[in-house]
Amino acid sequence: MIRPYRMITVLFLGSDKMKKKIAYLGPKGTFSYEVCNKIYKEEIEKIPYNTIKNTITSLNKKLSDEAVVPIENSLQGCVTETLDTLIENENIYIKEEKILKIKHNLMTNKNNNIEDIKEIYSHPQALAQCREYIDSNFKNIEIIEVSSTAKAAEKIKGKENAACIGNIECQREYDLKILKKNIQDNDFNETKFWVLTNKPQDNKNAKLITIVFSTDHKPGALYHILGIFNHYNLNLSKIESRPTKTRLGKYYFWIDIEIKNKDYTKALEELKKSVSFYRVLGKY
Amino acid sequence: MIRPYRMITVLFLGSDKMKKKIAYLGPKGTFSYEVCNKIYKEEIEKIPYNTIKNTITSLNKKLSDEAVVPIENSLQGCVTETLDTLIENENIYIKEEKILKIKHNLMTNKNNNIEDIKEIYSHPQALAQCREYIDSNFKNIEIIEVSSTAKAAEKIKGKENAACIGNIECQREYDLKILKKNIQDNDFNETKFWVLTNKPQDNKNAKLITIVFSTDHKPGALYHILGIFNHYNLNLSKIESRPTKTRLGKYYFWIDIEIKNKDYTKALEELKKSVSFYRVLGKY
Repeated sequence: MIRPYRMITVLFLGSDKMKKKIAYLGPKGTFSYEVCNKIYKEEIEKIPYNTIKNTITSLNKKLSDEAVVPIENSLQGCVTETLDTLIENENIYIKEEKILKIKHNLMTNKNNNIEDIKEIYSHPQALAQCREYIDSNFKNIEIIEVSSTAKAAEKIKGKENAACIGNIECQREYDLKILKKNIQDNDFNETKFWVLTNKPQDNKNAKLITIVFSTDHKPGALYHILGIFNHYNLNLSKIESRPTKTRLGKYYFWIDIEIKNKDYTKALEELKKSVSFYRVLGKY
Repeated sequence: MIRPYRMITVLFLGSDKMKKKIAYLGPKGTFSYEVCNKIYKEEIEKIPYNTIKNTITSLNKKLSDEAVVPIENSLQGCVTETLDTLIENENIYIKEEKILKIKHNLMTNKNNNIEDIKEIYSHPQALAQCREYIDSNFKNIEIIEVSSTAKAAEKIKGKENAACIGNIECQREYDLKILKKNIQDNDFNETKFWVLTNKPQDNKNAKLITIVFSTDHKPGALYHILGIFNHYNLNLSKIESRPTKTRLGKYYFWIDIEIKNKDYTKALEELKKSVSFYRVLGKY
């Protein structure tokens, strides 16, 4: 009599274990959500978090297996909350990067038309990125800032005079009608995302290494360090500074090194000896 | 009969001309407002603007003589809107820098007490900087984010259960009572401000030069440029990258050079030849 139940239990456990848990900056319909849909071919469990910090630290708490967060936008620059949270939390690694072209759309509920629109809801950055379109197409429009483009889609639900600005996923997720596609003022608008994990990665075909370090505050310290990479003919595709939060003028430096040859290991060995703090975030 | 009127007109024009117009990131009571009160000993006309961009561009439109804006905070890093607006607007110069220690206070209306408080209003950054204090002193408190600490002071006016978090100027300007002083979680909290002008400056006692440049995207370009300063034994007290808004991976670099010797002019001559874009923002 007991056997069938046991078998069912085992089957359920099995299917639960197989589904990867992916934390993302929510709610449903954000650009991070769009990235999840693009990179995972297998069936996954997507878990939305309300802040970047909570998305990333879900890895430490073993609430998720991987986390998808934005790291840099071509117009706004680095996403400082991502960098700062990674500094504060050890044992988190970059598994891969994904670049998403940012396209904004003006959307509304199915029965509304463009001439009905009296209010536009969106995230402040999305609104800033569509400022010219809004100014030249609407007079006396009320702009309402909300915490995400997906939240904007949620907010306009059922409203007759409201539109939102967001990505195409919002249209699908919130069953909206597109009034106008690609309304962003600048077409060079892309965002880089990182897929993070709590397991060290060793990707043999990696093209980039991301490291963070801080130096003693003495003349030429950064120059000396860049010299190490120059000596081994390694290009840095990115350098970014973030405050150490101790005093003005003391920074962490984030760099991306392009892996062209095996010498990067020698460069990293030399780097370690020259800095006061150092961590490899990923090879991907 | 006409003379007295003429004389009065001349007097008025004279007194109008004498008062410098100072644009600042408003409203009244912000940290920028506090900086104005600290640096100007003479009588000035303070003009509040609602965004950093509008504060700075008031100089181009000759609506103000000088503008006071935040440039960097020891916890949050650089104020990207300030850097980006300066890139987009030529003929604006740094006259001086001023560092302000950021101290937050919990304030309310005169008849309220701490046990009445059910809502706390402030700017998201101020709230983040007092998170530990709030969490350990209040249960079930409602947090309301507004666009500035001064706006928070404005909002709680007349409310019986509300407090705001902000600087001491707010207490004076909005006639509030301080419930608790210095509630910031981290005491290394300071913000650097720049006083900007539309007139080129030539300060003989200058200690710093701020420049911005962009390089061709080739290996070692930044290293080569840092080498120029190293050669002349000039220390860079700051390096910051900002996106050029054309594509991911192309940056403007902002650097502060400490003026220790006259060789900085030679270094700048060499720099000019090695970069694709270059501007001196100030010698102060």
